[in-house]
Amino acid sequence: MTAAEPVSGSGASGCGSGASCDPGVDRDPGPRLDEVDEEAVLARILPLMRGGGPDVLVGPGDDAAVLRTGGRTVVTTDTMVRGRDWRDDWSSAQDVGAKLVAQNLADVAAMGAVPTGIVVTLVAEPATRLGWVEGFAEGVAQAASRAEVPVIGGDLSSAPAGTVVVSITALGEVDPAGPVLRSGARIGDRLAVCGSLGRSAAGLQLLGAGRGHAAPDLVTAHRRPEPPLHAGPEAARAGATAMLDLSDGLIRDGLRVARASRVRLDLSVQALAADVAALVPFVGPADAWECVLGGGEEHSLLATFPAAPPPGWRVVGRVCRGEGLTLDGEPTPVLGWDHFGRGARG
Amino acid sequence: MTAAEPVSGSGASGCGSGASCDPGVDRDPGPRLDEVDEEAVLARILPLMRGGGPDVLVGPGDDAAVLRTGGRTVVTTDTMVRGRDWRDDWSSAQDVGAKLVAQNLADVAAMGAVPTGIVVTLVAEPATRLGWVEGFAEGVAQAASRAEVPVIGGDLSSAPAGTVVVSITALGEVDPAGPVLRSGARIGDRLAVCGSLGRSAAGLQLLGAGRGHAAPDLVTAHRRPEPPLHAGPEAARAGATAMLDLSDGLIRDGLRVARASRVRLDLSVQALAADVAALVPFVGPADAWECVLGGGEEHSLLATFPAAPPPGWRVVGRVCRGEGLTLDGEPTPVLGWDHFGRGARG
Repeated sequence: MTAAEPVSGSGASGCGSGASCDPGVDRDPGPRLDEVDEEAVLARILPLMRGGGPDVLVGPGDDAAVLRTGGRTVVTTDTMVRGRDWRDDWSSAQDVGAKLVAQNLADVAAMGAVPTGIVVTLVAEPATRLGWVEGFAEGVAQAASRAEVPVIGGDLSSAPAGTVVVSITALGEVDPAGPVLRSGARIGDRLAVCGSLGRSAAGLQLLGAGRGHAAPDLVTAHRRPEPPLHAGPEAARAGATAMLDLSDGLIRDGLRVARASRVRLDLSVQALAADVAALVPFVGPADAWECVLGGGEEHSLLATFPAAPPPGWRVVGRVCRGEGLTLDGEPTPVLGWDHFGRGARG
Repeated sequence: MTAAEPVSGSGASGCGSGASCDPGVDRDPGPRLDEVDEEAVLARILPLMRGGGPDVLVGPGDDAAVLRTGGRTVVTTDTMVRGRDWRDDWSSAQDVGAKLVAQNLADVAAMGAVPTGIVVTLVAEPATRLGWVEGFAEGVAQAASRAEVPVIGGDLSSAPAGTVVVSITALGEVDPAGPVLRSGARIGDRLAVCGSLGRSAAGLQLLGAGRGHAAPDLVTAHRRPEPPLHAGPEAARAGATAMLDLSDGLIRDGLRVARASRVRLDLSVQALAADVAALVPFVGPADAWECVLGGGEEHSLLATFPAAPPPGWRVVGRVCRGEGLTLDGEPTPVLGWDHFGRGARG
């Protein structure tokens, strides 16, 4: 679930509920959705989206798709709203499609599952350019193809003026060693991360400051996160006791594990120093810490392991007796992360 | 899939793309979504939505739900947009929730499948009343409970001012005799319907004319359709060769079967006369025919059978050589249904 209200560090378009957000100048001279009929739209996007595969028994076009499934099917859904989750002047349609796939598949991976299919919904204002819709479909298709996940269905609807909403529901198959819930962390476990930290937030910050050119890699990390999907089932097989994907930041998501598992997570300043150091040249030391500890939309995986984590994971802390989240044993403010002054420790 | 553009006879709010639609006076004095935090919203709606059941291995609250599934899982998704698919002055929040469930589960049934779980997405403007959200959740929960389908997850997000979008993805398990596609109708099959015809459209018409009080049952059929979900798997077991649910009207949906199966469907005026007659007192003979042949959102099931259909179904026509859709052998206009003048035949 994401928040009904934009959350600092998450839903990180940087433009709140969208009222005051400039979605960018529309420079696409192509037809708008209200200038073409539904058949024409579907004729353009279905070939892009149509995903086959041996497990798709019935693909798009009937009342429903039919997927060959094993005994335990993972289901998750995640939505992006223009002006809240992206800005058209900062993210292309392709970026939006790719990111929507990434954040849904990260949820599947975080259960210790392999994605098996997605359905895609687009609810767009009549003034939306057909070119944007095609770009979105391309972004979805490319990201899905890279993850070897078929697009098995979807829905297309018109929205009131000013609104574009995109949504995916992803299905997956749980690894025999899974599912890995948030609630299984045990005292003494190692806390580990697979993937980057703070890079998406740093990229967003640079975009907001008009300095995206200073670090194109960070901007790309924000626009098109690439979660380590394979690492989810691997972690399950390696005995991970708890896992989630980092959508709202290390502190906020870490607290979810701590709460669900009734333990305390203690992060190590030393273990995070390299992540921070990599961002310092671009955003400065205080903001680098803020990005690493509080930055959302990274979609790396956070998990706890009773022994050393498998290759690709690095230990960033430990599971302890108590509750909440600490940094080298000291409490970290949570909701007031924007005012968190510990960055100087970096 | 529904249309990107509002379709006559479907998406039948009667108020087009919403620009000129009066969503009704907001008389709810309760808090708005932007006056409460996400935790408070979830605390109110999760207890309503949380659906258990022996096949829900992991319910809402983790990265994803996990559902015990058989070998063939049906997946479908359908969205409703305020001002396009409903008006707040014509439908309560409970109505919207119940209808969204109904139209998704009708798609599952139309594959010859039993629904096994739904995920629900709500994208609502900050000014949305918490009371509306609770009512919507109640409507979803009640309709899902009646169908014995657990609510296994969802997403909650804020929308630009003026927008409320609700969406469900439904999963189901295909009957061993299914799936029943749109493409299997064979020449000589009987064309049959399970459920009512034209009642939702007639109810909508009465609402539009300010005469809803004249036929509360028809208005209820529009606000809260109750598709014959059990009839889908039953039809599969009875050997149905093609099936879909009537979301866009008998002609439009019949054409989909005809096209997919490369046959002609011939409807019988005589067989539909009783459906028409039941509506005549409320909307007159011409509109009664229009409702029965063209009315959307009914969510009854249309199927073809090589022999007599099972109990609960009635034959309304026959599968013939050729293409398209005919009425007693004569062509029916399709897209211009609003101008269709054959109603006098009733």
